[in-house]
Amino acid sequence: MKIGGTPYRTIWIEEDGRAVAIIDQTRLPHAFETVSLRTVEDAARAISDMLVRGAPLIGATAAYGLCFAMATDPSDAALTAAHDRLLATRPTAVNLRWALDRMTSALAALPPAERLEAAYEEAARICDEDVETCRLIGVSGLKLIEEIAARKPGPVNVLTHCNAGWLACVDWGTATSPVYQAHDRGIDLHVWVDETRPRNQGGSLTAFELASHGVPHTVIVDNAGGHLMQRGQVDLCITGTDRVAANGDVANKIGTYLKALAARDNDVPFYVALPHSTIDWTVAQGTDIPIEERVGTEVSRVTGRTAGGALTEVDILNPGSPVANPGFDITPARLVTGFITERGLCAASRAGLLSLYPERAA
Amino acid sequence: MKIGGTPYRTIWIEEDGRAVAIIDQTRLPHAFETVSLRTVEDAARAISDMLVRGAPLIGATAAYGLCFAMATDPSDAALTAAHDRLLATRPTAVNLRWALDRMTSALAALPPAERLEAAYEEAARICDEDVETCRLIGVSGLKLIEEIAARKPGPVNVLTHCNAGWLACVDWGTATSPVYQAHDRGIDLHVWVDETRPRNQGGSLTAFELASHGVPHTVIVDNAGGHLMQRGQVDLCITGTDRVAANGDVANKIGTYLKALAARDNDVPFYVALPHSTIDWTVAQGTDIPIEERVGTEVSRVTGRTAGGALTEVDILNPGSPVANPGFDITPARLVTGFITERGLCAASRAGLLSLYPERAA
Repeated sequence: MKIGGTPYRTIWIEEDGRAVAIIDQTRLPHAFETVSLRTVEDAARAISDMLVRGAPLIGATAAYGLCFAMATDPSDAALTAAHDRLLATRPTAVNLRWALDRMTSALAALPPAERLEAAYEEAARICDEDVETCRLIGVSGLKLIEEIAARKPGPVNVLTHCNAGWLACVDWGTATSPVYQAHDRGIDLHVWVDETRPRNQGGSLTAFELASHGVPHTVIVDNAGGHLMQRGQVDLCITGTDRVAANGDVANKIGTYLKALAARDNDVPFYVALPHSTIDWTVAQGTDIPIEERVGTEVSRVTGRTAGGALTEVDILNPGSPVANPGFDITPARLVTGFITERGLCAASRAGLLSLYPERAA
Repeated sequence: MKIGGTPYRTIWIEEDGRAVAIIDQTRLPHAFETVSLRTVEDAARAISDMLVRGAPLIGATAAYGLCFAMATDPSDAALTAAHDRLLATRPTAVNLRWALDRMTSALAALPPAERLEAAYEEAARICDEDVETCRLIGVSGLKLIEEIAARKPGPVNVLTHCNAGWLACVDWGTATSPVYQAHDRGIDLHVWVDETRPRNQGGSLTAFELASHGVPHTVIVDNAGGHLMQRGQVDLCITGTDRVAANGDVANKIGTYLKALAARDNDVPFYVALPHSTIDWTVAQGTDIPIEERVGTEVSRVTGRTAGGALTEVDILNPGSPVANPGFDITPARLVTGFITERGLCAASRAGLLSLYPERAA
């Protein structure tokens, strides 16, 4: 997607063909800075310090980390050491292990002398496949936006929660992919961006990427979406998801459930965009998905720009009051109008998922 | 209620019998400071600069403002001038006009020489009546908490949104009054405090007053309440309200509607606490209540304490992204389990309200 008129991915090979550039997402939205990665340690730190975040992008960055390892020492021992170092950065991200395992099994099968070039080729494939998957999610979801645009005057108003955008992937994003494709086709569209407390990924990252690509949008507090739906100001909700259970229940950023309730109460379609890799066929229902309890300082402490332009942390809550910070919630499948996947749209149910992924039928 | 073990009201007469002390609520929760008011201008600025806020407390402060005017000049002209000066501070607050009109009509009927003492007496009555109304709301709501405590082990978990606490009134508060009364009677109870973006009245004021009085509580982001209800961690929701329509629809702080939806979806009782003065019998239904659109900087800019202890404002959103900031939403009466008033509990309906306020029947 575009930043300042220039198309970007979140990760790309630099001119020397070896170093890899990323956008330092810890500086967004306050500054746009790119960082060069050249070593396994560079890649590991970019992941653990959250210069890159979002499951697909973490996987892609780890894949290039293994490339850097092979450039220094293409031995089995070095491959294993780099794999383990990178895996330890964010142990809970599923895509991280998936990308590292895919790279390692491809490389381990080759003689060391061939591993360097093969590593860069495989990492590029991981990135390109992610871009294509996200693009196809957008093609699937575009139909929903086109249908609304065809039947109502004025902009199609889409509400999204958190950042399931291209900054979390390599390009396009998941929830944002239909939005970008509609915008690029000239459809009149406007996005309500939930701020998404406590980490404000909506107000910082989603707002940044929509603004950078030129998509009309408005930031709102998480409390406001229900009111907008009551007033007929939302035509469609699209969110991403961290994990979908086999019955169609959706784990996503805390607060998603509240928006799904409001959408149902106001007859607003509520869609969840995801690649096949987010479906966890081993989990029968949403209540079986563990919910991460995160540190309270994510709630009590906020980072922003002072009037002088410096980035500063401030404590905003009553000092000493305890804080609870569940990171995700479960939206029951009954509240989800449908899924938007790289293979098309389907109902939020086991039958719906199997209609698109028949190879998963028992 | 107590701060540091000492019982406080939000406004009280100082030892000289003339000056009035308030808590500077703009410094909360970061500092507890009281301010002496001695002139009409002091009172007017305390209201307009929001050292005091909350409809009942604004009314009480304005009433004492008229006392200060009478001390300087008890003439009709001075009374009118002070009335007009104080009314201009927050033109939309209903209690402000009500308190000023009540004071003015009481004083105008008296010879100037008797006005000063009468003014202080009437202002004290306004405060005492508010305290008694709020206390009775607590007596009504206490039953709900006692019933839950009687049938379950462990603490009664109450969720509240925004600050409908004693800091907004003279004492007790509305939504918090049942909580304080239950706590003071030794009932094991715990309050989930919604942060309440954008102005964070929950995380700052409600958390401060609960902590100061010793009530166990935990601050959560507004996104988290639905998840907690799904997990059975909320027994009862109690909020305040800015205005109740004659059919029982509730206008309250933005985001209240989302919590009411979650409560209904999880069979959690959702009550709204209010004094009779908050019922607007002239408004047939909630959709007729105008919703104030407030400035975007309330969303984009946050005040907090730096590590060094200074209060600082920081901008947290993507620079340049538009912001919408509706201040309130409407919770339909169908989602409200009942009202908690100074006359008891009733259903959230015209019939329910008339059962407690039969004098309002046409």
